[in-house]
Amino acid sequence: MSYNTFGKLFRFTTWGESHGPALGCTLDGVPPGIDLSEADIQKYLDERKPGQSKYTTQRQEPDQVKILSGVFEGKTTGTPIQLMIENVDQRSKDYGDIVERYRPGHADYTYIAKYGIRDHRGGGRSSARETAARVAAGAVARKVLGQTITIQAAMVQMGHTKIDYSRFDWAETRQNPFFCPDAETAQVWATELDQIRKSGSSIGAVVEVVADGVPAGWGAPVYSKLDSDLAAALMSINAAKGVEIGAGMLAATLTGEKNADEMRPGTDGNPEFLSNNAGGILGGISSGQPIVARFAIKPTSSILTPRKSIDRQGNPVDVMTKGRHDPCVGIRAVPVAEAMMAAVLADHMLLHRAQCG
Amino acid sequence: MSYNTFGKLFRFTTWGESHGPALGCTLDGVPPGIDLSEADIQKYLDERKPGQSKYTTQRQEPDQVKILSGVFEGKTTGTPIQLMIENVDQRSKDYGDIVERYRPGHADYTYIAKYGIRDHRGGGRSSARETAARVAAGAVARKVLGQTITIQAAMVQMGHTKIDYSRFDWAETRQNPFFCPDAETAQVWATELDQIRKSGSSIGAVVEVVADGVPAGWGAPVYSKLDSDLAAALMSINAAKGVEIGAGMLAATLTGEKNADEMRPGTDGNPEFLSNNAGGILGGISSGQPIVARFAIKPTSSILTPRKSIDRQGNPVDVMTKGRHDPCVGIRAVPVAEAMMAAVLADHMLLHRAQCG
Amino acid sequence: MSYNTFGKLFRFTTWGESHGPALGCTLDGVPPGIDLSEADIQKYLDERKPGQSKYTTQRQEPDQVKILSGVFEGKTTGTPIQLMIENVDQRSKDYGDIVERYRPGHADYTYIAKYGIRDHRGGGRSSARETAARVAAGAVARKVLGQTITIQAAMVQMGHTKIDYSRFDWAETRQNPFFCPDAETAQVWATELDQIRKSGSSIGAVVEVVADGVPAGWGAPVYSKLDSDLAAALMSINAAKGVEIGAGMLAATLTGEKNADEMRPGTDGNPEFLSNNAGGILGGISSGQPIVARFAIKPTSSILTPRKSIDRQGNPVDVMTKGRHDPCVGIRAVPVAEAMMAAVLADHMLLHRAQCG
Amino acid sequence: MSYNTFGKLFRFTTWGESHGPALGCTLDGVPPGIDLSEADIQKYLDERKPGQSKYTTQRQEPDQVKILSGVFEGKTTGTPIQLMIENVDQRSKDYGDIVERYRPGHADYTYIAKYGIRDHRGGGRSSARETAARVAAGAVARKVLGQTITIQAAMVQMGHTKIDYSRFDWAETRQNPFFCPDAETAQVWATELDQIRKSGSSIGAVVEVVADGVPAGWGAPVYSKLDSDLAAALMSINAAKGVEIGAGMLAATLTGEKNADEMRPGTDGNPEFLSNNAGGILGGISSGQPIVARFAIKPTSSILTPRKSIDRQGNPVDVMTKGRHDPCVGIRAVPVAEAMMAAVLADHMLLHRAQCG
Repeated sequence: MSYNTFGKLFRFTTWGESHGPALGCTLDGVPPGIDLSEADIQKYLDERKPGQSKYTTQRQEPDQVKILSGVFEGKTTGTPIQLMIENVDQRSKDYGDIVERYRPGHADYTYIAKYGIRDHRGGGRSSARETAARVAAGAVARKVLGQTITIQAAMVQMGHTKIDYSRFDWAETRQNPFFCPDAETAQVWATELDQIRKSGSSIGAVVEVVADGVPAGWGAPVYSKLDSDLAAALMSINAAKGVEIGAGMLAATLTGEKNADEMRPGTDGNPEFLSNNAGGILGGISSGQPIVARFAIKPTSSILTPRKSIDRQGNPVDVMTKGRHDPCVGIRAVPVAEAMMAAVLADHMLLHRAQCG
Repeated sequence: MSYNTFGKLFRFTTWGESHGPALGCTLDGVPPGIDLSEADIQKYLDERKPGQSKYTTQRQEPDQVKILSGVFEGKTTGTPIQLMIENVDQRSKDYGDIVERYRPGHADYTYIAKYGIRDHRGGGRSSARETAARVAAGAVARKVLGQTITIQAAMVQMGHTKIDYSRFDWAETRQNPFFCPDAETAQVWATELDQIRKSGSSIGAVVEVVADGVPAGWGAPVYSKLDSDLAAALMSINAAKGVEIGAGMLAATLTGEKNADEMRPGTDGNPEFLSNNAGGILGGISSGQPIVARFAIKPTSSILTPRKSIDRQGNPVDVMTKGRHDPCVGIRAVPVAEAMMAAVLADHMLLHRAQCG
Repeated sequence: MSYNTFGKLFRFTTWGESHGPALGCTLDGVPPGIDLSEADIQKYLDERKPGQSKYTTQRQEPDQVKILSGVFEGKTTGTPIQLMIENVDQRSKDYGDIVERYRPGHADYTYIAKYGIRDHRGGGRSSARETAARVAAGAVARKVLGQTITIQAAMVQMGHTKIDYSRFDWAETRQNPFFCPDAETAQVWATELDQIRKSGSSIGAVVEVVADGVPAGWGAPVYSKLDSDLAAALMSINAAKGVEIGAGMLAATLTGEKNADEMRPGTDGNPEFLSNNAGGILGGISSGQPIVARFAIKPTSSILTPRKSIDRQGNPVDVMTKGRHDPCVGIRAVPVAEAMMAAVLADHMLLHRAQCG
Repeated sequence: MSYNTFGKLFRFTTWGESHGPALGCTLDGVPPGIDLSEADIQKYLDERKPGQSKYTTQRQEPDQVKILSGVFEGKTTGTPIQLMIENVDQRSKDYGDIVERYRPGHADYTYIAKYGIRDHRGGGRSSARETAARVAAGAVARKVLGQTITIQAAMVQMGHTKIDYSRFDWAETRQNPFFCPDAETAQVWATELDQIRKSGSSIGAVVEVVADGVPAGWGAPVYSKLDSDLAAALMSINAAKGVEIGAGMLAATLTGEKNADEMRPGTDGNPEFLSNNAGGILGGISSGQPIVARFAIKPTSSILTPRKSIDRQGNPVDVMTKGRHDPCVGIRAVPVAEAMMAAVLADHMLLHRAQCG
């Protein structure tokens, strides 16, 4: 239970504001004796880093991680791991004119409604910059899970344009600036997003994240269901507004005959499933199938077109945002999705071990 | 943190199996001095109770709640409240032939994979019967929230048939056996579900739940976002596979211009929003608009058509389910949705009070 | 985190008031596949039961436990276990005259200061009757720990009269009505307590609890130290005012030479310690030595001698308590101490397994 | 629930090793709008800082705190506060010869038994250096509590020499290097500790901590009793082996007549208590009297006299410790005790506000 802490046994607390001196995360509960170096974490941070293409914000942040505790001679010691990333490119003046005006679709108004105070610089705590800390934590989670579990994410929809699943290729996701698993769709998106970007607009997206190699038996009834924890994890990502497991919202349209994933004896002693509408989770517990989740990311509200709003005094104003922003924040949500899937699974690995030995 | 406990400050732990002697919930953290009687709880249990129409399971359970602790002379005392519901109609013999066979789409296999043991009678702990305890807890949550907050749910889609939102009428939801807010659609569903029921099949659904009167400022960054906690709560409902807040999955298709809910000065000192794509939550914190969530419920896999499966020894078998079941479990998920919304909000009401006074 | 919940992974929530219809506990996180029957629990409840000698309250409660969930065909299933004990002998009228008067040394005043309401019947939630639920939970904890770990408690001091440790004999503790491990001291106590009882007075005591067979490595830095969790557990017992681990308060008087428990190679591969000032815990982690704790229990304030107090309106009054009470509540704290030690260790067994495999 | 996290609503996680690059704490749940500067924290760190007299370790650490997040324009924002202290004087070579040898009375052996790995440099995570982070957290807790609550601690016993309570003077505690409230006893201690220090030995102590101004009603039954949480907090301090509330262990010797604190109507509308054996806590809830706790600190085992031990391979060895150490660690436990009392109270202030408004 904590506002900024994720997880039950594999736990991390993120801290830091968009334009403060640094941000990071404090991990607790990490098993001892695991190899861990800054390079192990850096490679995932580099995937999320801004400014890597014209389709993401031009803020220049090296996002260099430092391990401050919990690792000794290259191995985890079982004590808290502090990961710190210093902020470098805080161009605060960009935000000067939104200090007193609530940007529609942003957390400006609700933070004031809650706290009566907010760090307006770059969105403060509500900025997606916080997700850098998650990616760092996710890198540690992957180490805990070990090499038999693979976690991959991809952007599968941008605006109305979906990928063609028949062309789905994980290898392709690192070949284009969209983490798109379908080369042809990536080209379409390039054209579409160029236009959106130039017009100062933005667009939503859907990200899919898949974990392979998860054994049957992880998860738990009733309020720690694997799908429940995954839903919370993915919905906590900035701008997420919908989460699906397996068939997701379409499960509503299925009959019992079509929905139930039939089973046959498998060759490895485990059952073979003939479909995966359940997204690898039955009764909140993993079935041994791939865990499949998707979530929708709304477009950023930081756009050039003026929108109606109010200021802190309640006066009507128009707001337009001139700062550096992502025309499609879904792109940079892809490494974050992998991190959150890894964190949920690492947590449930430890929970399962605790109760079931 | 607990497998069967929900909430941080308004907390309840549900217990009990489908065919055990009783089930119930233990609430902790309820503020003192609130009027609470068994009748206050019973009215919501009666809405969820099975056997009220031909469209739900014919199991006969009075679902009579008893308050065993925490209430003195009609008022809560601030100490734990134990609510118990005795099981009456446990026709266990119905389930005899599925003791050794895993029903596809059910938790049979995953419970064994996790625990090595399961109470197979009526699904044991994985049965939706557990949701009776949630409805009881939700009734207490409503009392905590008080009368200025209204929580209502409705079934808005069954299979491919959606309601017409232009005919949406909350009053209608208690006039038909589907909690349908659109009288015309209710009639279509009646015909469709009759056919499904007679053929021994089942169908999925979408439930929408709305909270009015929630003040701006509830919720919290980052891992206790109101939408994150709501997603976990709704995804924990049996058979849920997708959760949406506001625009939900469709947020992916919107541009920044369309998505951002514009604001104007309101007449009551609070801003007036010109749309509600955010579902009443910005940055994880309530905006003062109605909180709007939806979730998809998959069809039950307890159907008469034989499906391929395996038994506990790993042999291929065919499974069909002859017991009493719900052709559309989405119907009875409606009161459960209200209960979970109430629980999330009561929890965040207390969390907000703790931190922000 | 919860007011009435104990533990992190082996968790239980107790509920119920002294004179309500029932009390009990909800356990969550218990590993599956453990043999568990009502008889396994009852034998410990019978040790704590009131009315077994003239030295404890004459309230007649059978304290018969019922398992309502979480056990199937004699084995735990991994789902919540509900244990219920019905109250039988609630002679509420005995307490009629203290409804409006705060008994000095009792929780009467502080409950009103906190909640503005209290169930005054028999002390309500503040009654030591709640400890019956702990003893039931402790019985389950012992099952989780298994037979290699032995937990025993004894009363080692009553008033100013301490036992002679050279005559300490665990077998003796069940041979006298004081759980006294020293037969000679038991006889002295009998005389002393007869006098106290007849004069309507009461007396304090010290209870010692020892766990043998705990392997080295359980516990954790920094805020989950085994001694920290034990201190919380024992201090949560009604009337406890002091807790000691190993040398306890006397550690203040020792030099470094005398305090440090020297080590030699042991015959079983583990170190042999030459003393146990640490009470089996170093740096918050078990050393493989016996875990030794003690706690002081204050005398009950329910005495026949009138004491100065105030009533609810703030008027000065004199209060004397005529109800049935324990002249030395330390006696019945002995089974409770064992239960709490068992609960702490079961919790740490699971925590250790989670993090360290 | 977390190994290195303290608190339920006012929560902090400490991180860092004795000889790592830095240590610190991550606070979550701090209310917004509170004035907070580095100077507010520094003054308490300066009290705990080593090397201030010949009676504490000669390690030179400026213990300069940096606020990295959660404070904006001098006020808390309600988001996580990261406090970092860089280590400066890590003279690791001093510890070279204890890498392979377990120091008796230290956590060396148990850390290896638990984790299979340990950061041996200066005791790593088990070092009392971690308490710097607590003192920083405690400074924030005081800000949350506000100026009406005063928290003070003092050393009241060193070895067999106790202070004379009739000379108790809080103002005196900052006039001598022992935080001793009795000037005459301070002089006796000076002589005694000089001798102990010169002989390379060490000695235990008792610290008392008192909170004035706590209103009646904070705390909660049953497992969040104020005394239970205080016991856990104080027992978590390095080297603590016993904790007392009010009369403490001596409560065992009292009769009901002597123990119960009588009440009279007070002049301010609250009751006036005629004694304080309860240490300000009844039924786990504050009574409005001063909260009084004491704890015993064992002597450090880092002494010059060789002690029997074993090495990592299980061979018998003799261990003597030549590094810089505190002859009486109780001295520097005084500011830590204040910090932990402040943290427990801040936590319960928020808990009370959450449930009771």
